Amino acid sequence: MAQTLDLDALVAFAHELADAARRETLPRFRSALAVDNKLAADFDPVTDADREAERAIRALIERRYPEHGILGEEHGERLPNAQLRWVLDPIDGTRSFICGAPTWTTLIALERGPEPILGVIDQPHVEERWIGAGERAWLHRRASVRAITTSGCERLADARVSTTDPRAVGYFDAAEEAAFARLARACKLARFSMDAYAYALLAMGQLDLVVESGLKHYDYAALAPVVRGAGGVITDWRGESFDADAGGHTVAAATPQLHAEALAMLGR
Amino acid sequence: MAQTLDLDALVAFAHELADAARRETLPRFRSALAVDNKLAADFDPVTDADREAERAIRALIERRYPEHGILGEEHGERLPNAQLRWVLDPIDGTRSFICGAPTWTTLIALERGPEPILGVIDQPHVEERWIGAGERAWLHRRASVRAITTSGCERLADARVSTTDPRAVGYFDAAEEAAFARLARACKLARFSMDAYAYALLAMGQLDLVVESGLKHYDYAALAPVVRGAGGVITDWRGESFDADAGGHTVAAATPQLHAEALAMLGR
Repeated sequence: MAQTLDLDALVAFAHELADAARRETLPRFRSALAVDNKLAADFDPVTDADREAERAIRALIERRYPEHGILGEEHGERLPNAQLRWVLDPIDGTRSFICGAPTWTTLIALERGPEPILGVIDQPHVEERWIGAGERAWLHRRASVRAITTSGCERLADARVSTTDPRAVGYFDAAEEAAFARLARACKLARFSMDAYAYALLAMGQLDLVVESGLKHYDYAALAPVVRGAGGVITDWRGESFDADAGGHTVAAATPQLHAEALAMLGR
Repeated sequence: MAQTLDLDALVAFAHELADAARRETLPRFRSALAVDNKLAADFDPVTDADREAERAIRALIERRYPEHGILGEEHGERLPNAQLRWVLDPIDGTRSFICGAPTWTTLIALERGPEPILGVIDQPHVEERWIGAGERAWLHRRASVRAITTSGCERLADARVSTTDPRAVGYFDAAEEAAFARLARACKLARFSMDAYAYALLAMGQLDLVVESGLKHYDYAALAPVVRGAGGVITDWRGESFDADAGGHTVAAATPQLHAEALAMLGR
């Protein structure tokens, strides 16, 4: 019953998808943007770049793999019962994008059933592309490619931690904010506002811990293959599988030891 | 009495200085680093990159302009009574540097008396260099160069605001944190952890407001020529000149109107 996958071919295709997205996003980065609000209550800008990048990716998938499902942030779901499904967030970190910060990314994942088996985190302006698949992970930059692994950090006291925005409405609730603040005080240092880019830095050993909540499925799917392929651990705040409907909590850590210490500190 | 300055020659020399710093910083970025603590109580890493970049810059200045003063973060002051003084922060955003984030910068300023007249904000990994001098500002990236200006944003409600780290020990005191939180709620969105890179984004119209405290003189000197050269305003939280000894507060804004509204909200 299990479909035989040519993972190398799918990785090569994922590069084509990320290249197509770059052609839509990069010319619009740091240009004047028509920003409108998706939700009145919670600032969540939608840009032409977001829509057009997803449209370009979907067109390539529909032509090459018409039997595959697609779940995208902007244009919804196609073939929900397909065995293989692409999950797309054309611009993760939209706030960074509209502030000119070079830490927004394009996220592309491939899932088999519930399991993400391939993930791409692409930053076009810096020309960095992290890929995870088949228990390995790599960083591509221009013509270079190298295998990456997480740091060996095993203790919170030595850890560089990141979260995106503890102040944003609907991101952390009060108890979560207190838990994160406790955790951050126990760590060596904290950095903010990097969205998926933080997971890429963790995968290459530059951050040791990323803790977030409120992630949607399309924010998460590409992260897991990159983090796990690099030797890291990623779960929700209870050590269970990510669940967008249960709050979209993530704890990504360089090592199982650090992950366990973070879960204990988050107190769930 | 006033010395005649060849500003173009000094700008060309500032490029040489930034290039020399890049040769020391870039090979050490995202490599294993020997990080030690400058102050036991407050995490403030010093890296080889920091020290070696400053050493390289100082050597060039001492050879080319032996009569100029130098104030550097790492190696102290030279010729304190010189009419012209270079002010150096070889790695601003050391925390970003050691987390692999591409938003640390090298800061180089030239002061005549108390007034910074030339500023460089250089990000080697992304190959971005912002320069302000003589009431103009530019962004250099690889072979391209273009004049930059701040956004026309005049209202807090439309503003993209940034500060580095409201949680860091010794950064904001409690009253300052409350004032910043009030301000951030009045703005359209907030981003964190970008250090001097945020002022560069403001100068090119991507952010509208940057509010910080705790800056040292060498953190500040390069910012003013870039922000002012691009048409922005930069003062302390009372609308007066920056003063590191009085707390190192900054408010940088795209327009005088936005600057006035921010000062009023900060309540000083």
